[in-house]
Amino acid sequence: MSQPAAAPIMNKEVAPFANLPSMNNLFFQAKARKGLSFEAIAKHLGKDEVWVAAAFYGQAKFTEEELKKLSDLLGVSSSSAVAQIGDNWFPYRGTLVEFPPRDPVIYRLFEGISVYGTAIKAIINEKFGDGIMSLIDCKVTIDKKENPKGDRVILTFDGKFLPYAKW
Amino acid sequence: MSQPAAAPIMNKEVAPFANLPSMNNLFFQAKARKGLSFEAIAKHLGKDEVWVAAAFYGQAKFTEEELKKLSDLLGVSSSSAVAQIGDNWFPYRGTLVEFPPRDPVIYRLFEGISVYGTAIKAIINEKFGDGIMSLIDCKVTIDKKENPKGDRVILTFDGKFLPYAKW
Amino acid sequence: MSQPAAAPIMNKEVAPFANLPSMNNLFFQAKARKGLSFEAIAKHLGKDEVWVAAAFYGQAKFTEEELKKLSDLLGVSSSSAVAQIGDNWFPYRGTLVEFPPRDPVIYRLFEGISVYGTAIKAIINEKFGDGIMSLIDCKVTIDKKENPKGDRVILTFDGKFLPYAKW
Amino acid sequence: MSQPAAAPIMNKEVAPFANLPSMNNLFFQAKARKGLSFEAIAKHLGKDEVWVAAAFYGQAKFTEEELKKLSDLLGVSSSSAVAQIGDNWFPYRGTLVEFPPRDPVIYRLFEGISVYGTAIKAIINEKFGDGIMSLIDCKVTIDKKENPKGDRVILTFDGKFLPYAKW
Amino acid sequence: MSQPAAAPIMNKEVAPFANLPSMNNLFFQAKARKGLSFEAIAKHLGKDEVWVAAAFYGQAKFTEEELKKLSDLLGVSSSSAVAQIGDNWFPYRGTLVEFPPRDPVIYRLFEGISVYGTAIKAIINEKFGDGIMSLIDCKVTIDKKENPKGDRVILTFDGKFLPYAKW
Amino acid sequence: MSQPAAAPIMNKEVAPFANLPSMNNLFFQAKARKGLSFEAIAKHLGKDEVWVAAAFYGQAKFTEEELKKLSDLLGVSSSSAVAQIGDNWFPYRGTLVEFPPRDPVIYRLFEGISVYGTAIKAIINEKFGDGIMSLIDCKVTIDKKENPKGDRVILTFDGKFLPYAKW
Amino acid sequence: MSQPAAAPIMNKEVAPFANLPSMNNLFFQAKARKGLSFEAIAKHLGKDEVWVAAAFYGQAKFTEEELKKLSDLLGVSSSSAVAQIGDNWFPYRGTLVEFPPRDPVIYRLFEGISVYGTAIKAIINEKFGDGIMSLIDCKVTIDKKENPKGDRVILTFDGKFLPYAKW
Amino acid sequence: MSQPAAAPIMNKEVAPFANLPSMNNLFFQAKARKGLSFEAIAKHLGKDEVWVAAAFYGQAKFTEEELKKLSDLLGVSSSSAVAQIGDNWFPYRGTLVEFPPRDPVIYRLFEGISVYGTAIKAIINEKFGDGIMSLIDCKVTIDKKENPKGDRVILTFDGKFLPYAKW
Amino acid sequence: MSQPAAAPIMNKEVAPFANLPSMNNLFFQAKARKGLSFEAIAKHLGKDEVWVAAAFYGQAKFTEEELKKLSDLLGVSSSSAVAQIGDNWFPYRGTLVEFPPRDPVIYRLFEGISVYGTAIKAIINEKFGDGIMSLIDCKVTIDKKENPKGDRVILTFDGKFLPYAKW
Amino acid sequence: MSQPAAAPIMNKEVAPFANLPSMNNLFFQAKARKGLSFEAIAKHLGKDEVWVAAAFYGQAKFTEEELKKLSDLLGVSSSSAVAQIGDNWFPYRGTLVEFPPRDPVIYRLFEGISVYGTAIKAIINEKFGDGIMSLIDCKVTIDKKENPKGDRVILTFDGKFLPYAKW
Repeated sequence: MSQPAAAPIMNKEVAPFANLPSMNNLFFQAKARKGLSFEAIAKHLGKDEVWVAAAFYGQAKFTEEELKKLSDLLGVSSSSAVAQIGDNWFPYRGTLVEFPPRDPVIYRLFEGISVYGTAIKAIINEKFGDGIMSLIDCKVTIDKKENPKGDRVILTFDGKFLPYAKW
Repeated sequence: MSQPAAAPIMNKEVAPFANLPSMNNLFFQAKARKGLSFEAIAKHLGKDEVWVAAAFYGQAKFTEEELKKLSDLLGVSSSSAVAQIGDNWFPYRGTLVEFPPRDPVIYRLFEGISVYGTAIKAIINEKFGDGIMSLIDCKVTIDKKENPKGDRVILTFDGKFLPYAKW
Repeated sequence: MSQPAAAPIMNKEVAPFANLPSMNNLFFQAKARKGLSFEAIAKHLGKDEVWVAAAFYGQAKFTEEELKKLSDLLGVSSSSAVAQIGDNWFPYRGTLVEFPPRDPVIYRLFEGISVYGTAIKAIINEKFGDGIMSLIDCKVTIDKKENPKGDRVILTFDGKFLPYAKW
Repeated sequence: MSQPAAAPIMNKEVAPFANLPSMNNLFFQAKARKGLSFEAIAKHLGKDEVWVAAAFYGQAKFTEEELKKLSDLLGVSSSSAVAQIGDNWFPYRGTLVEFPPRDPVIYRLFEGISVYGTAIKAIINEKFGDGIMSLIDCKVTIDKKENPKGDRVILTFDGKFLPYAKW
Repeated sequence: MSQPAAAPIMNKEVAPFANLPSMNNLFFQAKARKGLSFEAIAKHLGKDEVWVAAAFYGQAKFTEEELKKLSDLLGVSSSSAVAQIGDNWFPYRGTLVEFPPRDPVIYRLFEGISVYGTAIKAIINEKFGDGIMSLIDCKVTIDKKENPKGDRVILTFDGKFLPYAKW
Repeated sequence: MSQPAAAPIMNKEVAPFANLPSMNNLFFQAKARKGLSFEAIAKHLGKDEVWVAAAFYGQAKFTEEELKKLSDLLGVSSSSAVAQIGDNWFPYRGTLVEFPPRDPVIYRLFEGISVYGTAIKAIINEKFGDGIMSLIDCKVTIDKKENPKGDRVILTFDGKFLPYAKW
Repeated sequence: MSQPAAAPIMNKEVAPFANLPSMNNLFFQAKARKGLSFEAIAKHLGKDEVWVAAAFYGQAKFTEEELKKLSDLLGVSSSSAVAQIGDNWFPYRGTLVEFPPRDPVIYRLFEGISVYGTAIKAIINEKFGDGIMSLIDCKVTIDKKENPKGDRVILTFDGKFLPYAKW
Repeated sequence: MSQPAAAPIMNKEVAPFANLPSMNNLFFQAKARKGLSFEAIAKHLGKDEVWVAAAFYGQAKFTEEELKKLSDLLGVSSSSAVAQIGDNWFPYRGTLVEFPPRDPVIYRLFEGISVYGTAIKAIINEKFGDGIMSLIDCKVTIDKKENPKGDRVILTFDGKFLPYAKW
Repeated sequence: MSQPAAAPIMNKEVAPFANLPSMNNLFFQAKARKGLSFEAIAKHLGKDEVWVAAAFYGQAKFTEEELKKLSDLLGVSSSSAVAQIGDNWFPYRGTLVEFPPRDPVIYRLFEGISVYGTAIKAIINEKFGDGIMSLIDCKVTIDKKENPKGDRVILTFDGKFLPYAKW
Repeated sequence: MSQPAAAPIMNKEVAPFANLPSMNNLFFQAKARKGLSFEAIAKHLGKDEVWVAAAFYGQAKFTEEELKKLSDLLGVSSSSAVAQIGDNWFPYRGTLVEFPPRDPVIYRLFEGISVYGTAIKAIINEKFGDGIMSLIDCKVTIDKKENPKGDRVILTFDGKFLPYAKW
């Protein structure tokens, strides 16, 4: 490897998670070494930045083409990437966050459901009928709205409504 | 009371929650009897519909003026409303939803955090720095985006970014 | 009411659940008094018997037309039924079963996931790709296959495959 | 070993489970290297694919004959396989899936019990009497029903009915 | 009722359980008033005493004939008994004991599994092969073996061995 | 060591437990290599097979004499055995089984308490008075009763009755 | 009743427990009305005060003779007491304290186990061998040792040592 | 090291705890090698044996002088001991015992609180007023009272009473 | 009662707690009817307002003199108050707040421990030695520090340091 | 490294936490070797000591400048520090303390919320209105108030009040 002999950046520097595929750990380390933001990587891949971050955390699945592009960008072995987490690998989602979450950033999302969950259900039912907002066909975006009193985080879930089937 | 002697609508018809202030139960029953949507009530009060639903569920606080307007609209005693949940009453938030939530509508929100929580944290930190999206100064909205392949739920959290204080 | 003054059948005779809408309790009591099976009720309504049982337990939503047909069959007030759990009421699903379930019938289903869950995930991913079997667009049926060595229960989930959306 | 020096595929690439017998990890790695599906392996062994996947995850027990056939197919040592997980080894089942499961594929099965569990119990009792569907004498199959509106997953549990013994 | 106006014996005097069918509570009260042991009742019904106690606690199902015999013995209405918990009623088992149990009598059973569970599994597997001892086709008996150093409780589970099916 | 260079049998092939004393792991490996059943070992030691299995799992305490006999039988160092788990070592019992247990063999024992626990308590109290069946002075045996309809497991707990002391 | 019409003292004034036999609630109310300490009652009954308090909380069993003496002292109906919690009633122990306990008095006992539990086990094993201190044959006493720097609570468990049986 | 090349005694032979400071593990191993009881060590240090056992388990803090005396007695490096767990180290107490504890010796202590906790609180309050028995200023002792019917364990907590402050 | 026939204010309007002594509920209702703040009540009693609020919630103990003063102020029966929660009653503390707390005000306190707990322990140990800050001899105060950028809450725990006793 | 070959001080000597970034472990080890208090380090950095301790435990974020100053003071590589936990790293807070905490120092903080949490909420609401004390814009300090009867710990949270936004 041609990187300078800087202190190695282990995955626990990134997040205290033990179960990621080893390829993903390499991605995190390379991203840190290269100083790339998810936004920059997402632009390079033509994907959304939240989705790319999710894929780094093993919560979404890169296509083999995306894996190759990403490996090239990060300077890691693309054949290893494809062999490990290519078409024959499927994410085992949802195991990173403990509930209730303790990190204050993630806890506030939990508080959002805890406080507003029943209201959100009531409005979805009133506006759409008996059914749910899909989390499978759902896009998550984060925007920054500048504001002199304090910038605002605009977090949006854009999910397909699925009505309960009749049978 | 001048309503027809229809079957009384108890709160458990609305939601299986036992701890709401009794006034809120009266609001739910009157809303059902009058066939009013949260959207209609919200328009009458000049508030957002998610906020109004949250206040019905005891998760937000009406002003006394709002309580009077609402009581008149629903045909319940406004003096009782003010005496019970007026200026001297404060919501005890967050006790309605058990975790992990079981109702599929609310569960999908939980799945959103479980799957995308670490990605959302990563992007907020990259975009804004070390801090959180406030859930106190936060507005929640739900919009319906019509789509021939299936309408979409647009659920948005618009919260102030709060950086960690230096000390 | 014209039924003989038999001992009243309370819902806890049916199942130890406290949170059902009161109308559903009346349905259970009338069903027991009339000695009707879910199969018979389902035939009368033109629906599947598992779905009808689910709706009795507050886990699915009758249309107003179905409520009227059902009320007539069971001899309960259809206007009460419509007022309480008609178009303006939405199920709050999933709160009846505690996990891990203790009743051996329900526990065995849980054991099915506990033992075969990872295998089922692996086969769904291999056969369909990255996605899930929907439980919203899903039909559940139970058939009896007679067998001299012991009859067999054929429990089938027929759910739509939902691939993860690209974004 | 004669395999090309590709990136080693560790078990955590397959699934985040730590307790599988080491032989099973070798099976998973060889299956990935050879690009074999469970369907292909099952056909080779004359077994059902869900059962074979379950056995890979340590949830079912290969006979020694099956272990030899499988080892030959995968190119791993059959004597090691027999020594480790042959006739003297018995599965310790049910430890892979945490409840409630977080992976959305497995969660939907859980939701199936959570929402329809009491209905399934009611119908089994009505159709078969006081007893259970066995999960010991039970076959699980997954079929793909093609459908222009979206293919459907047909997941079937075919289990023997066991009546409660009289004593 | 012809009993003397003694203090009513509520079910919480018997055991702190709230969810039993009301008929079962009447059975417990009548048993206490008449001073009948489970042994005496079991002899009258031609059943085992542990089974009869289990049925009192709603964990087993009397036939209608047994219900009539029992009601006559206890002096309660047999038609009420049959209407409530007769052929159309099925036990919802397993909800009385919280785990870990706190009552020392029940806790010691739990300790038996906690300490000897893996040994019992190992011996069952060695003696019978891959399968389980059924708890559906299982008879539980308690005998008293007198012993000058302290009488001994002989608690026996006599359950059918069920081998895992091949598929 | 004179054993053939077969694949090493790690403890996780035996059971997924991490906390056993290392000597016990050696015992398990030697038992597997030698193909000895617990029954054969128990006969050699003049002990009951369930007790011997329990001691292998660290749930009972061998005397130093038993350790020597066992080490000789299994071909491991008896001085190591005595040094590690001899007279100065005491079992830390009860940590192997998680509750509710997931393995179906052990779960059925749990179901036995869950369903019949209150009945067992009631009968013990009626037959013996206020007290418990000891799990300290308790012998556990497993017998096989052959039966053309399916062999039966006879699992017996033979424990001393301990009455509550008066003070 | 001849007591003055003071405010009734409900059991929740004594302790927030719902599951005590109703007789025990009457005992608590009468004890409060009469201003009797457990020490005084214990002296009257010739028993230890901790034991008497335990019996008030349903954690120990009065003999019928003790029930009569106690009822007379407290001015409640002794025949009711005997009918309800006499010889045919057995305590269902251990359900009053939630763990970890929150009340600081009880929590400190829990902290005693949490901090010193392994040390206590080590010393019992070293001093007595492989076995336990019985909680069935165990007397608990509380003494007050006056001390100018602050009085001291002397809490003593005096329990029989039970060695593990050989089998 | 001059000890004979006996089988190394790892900490898991002593107790299944992973988080002790490494020095404490060395203490446990040396204590086992030298065959010293806690009583002997305590006498050497002029401390109570329960306290010494607690300090071995990381639940109390040796002074540097005690560390030196202890290291000399056990034949381990006293400078290492002081560097690691000397004056600058503070115990992180209470993490060894899981609740409810499973080991029967420790469980019985738990059962003591579970059964007698409310009685103990009641007597402490009656005898001392509103306050607690301190577990910080508390001495724990274990004595052996010989008895022909079975020796008795005398476990005593001698803790300062702390009244609630007035403010 | 001379208050106007306003809607009764039930305790659930104040806080969703079921286990308070009934006298405390009367206090809350009277406080609301009279529109008195805790500050005003505290001034009247010569106590701190946090302490008075704690006593209202059953978490501290009024003297009989305080109960009389308070009853007079609130217009409730002081003899009832003394009879119910006077000298013979002791608080059962700590049962109102579930953990993790959901109400955002209380959750933030929990987050304070979750994030800063280990740092607080480290500093207390460094500054004071091996011991704790007492919560028995501890005063809690809340002050408002006005600030043009947003007022600040000054929450202070002033607790006695208790060093671990030597024994 | 030029330090004397003292016994290495592993992080578990400091606190039983496994997930800290490796740089933080180096900081703890260097702090112990150099015998520096948090107070001394804080003075050097111009920060508060509680904040510095929190940052050591990975609960706050050093700026790169602070990291350099700190690395120089402790004699560790500042480039490693910046590479690992510099500007591109964000704390994953709140994972060190398990709830309920067991260490008595941290437990007492928990007891503070458990006992006084509802009172604190009530006073904050009365004094400030509907909102919270921020834990993001919050400063935590610990002072020692000397007192002949026992020194006192003054623990202060100084947090910004955040009113609920109107929408």
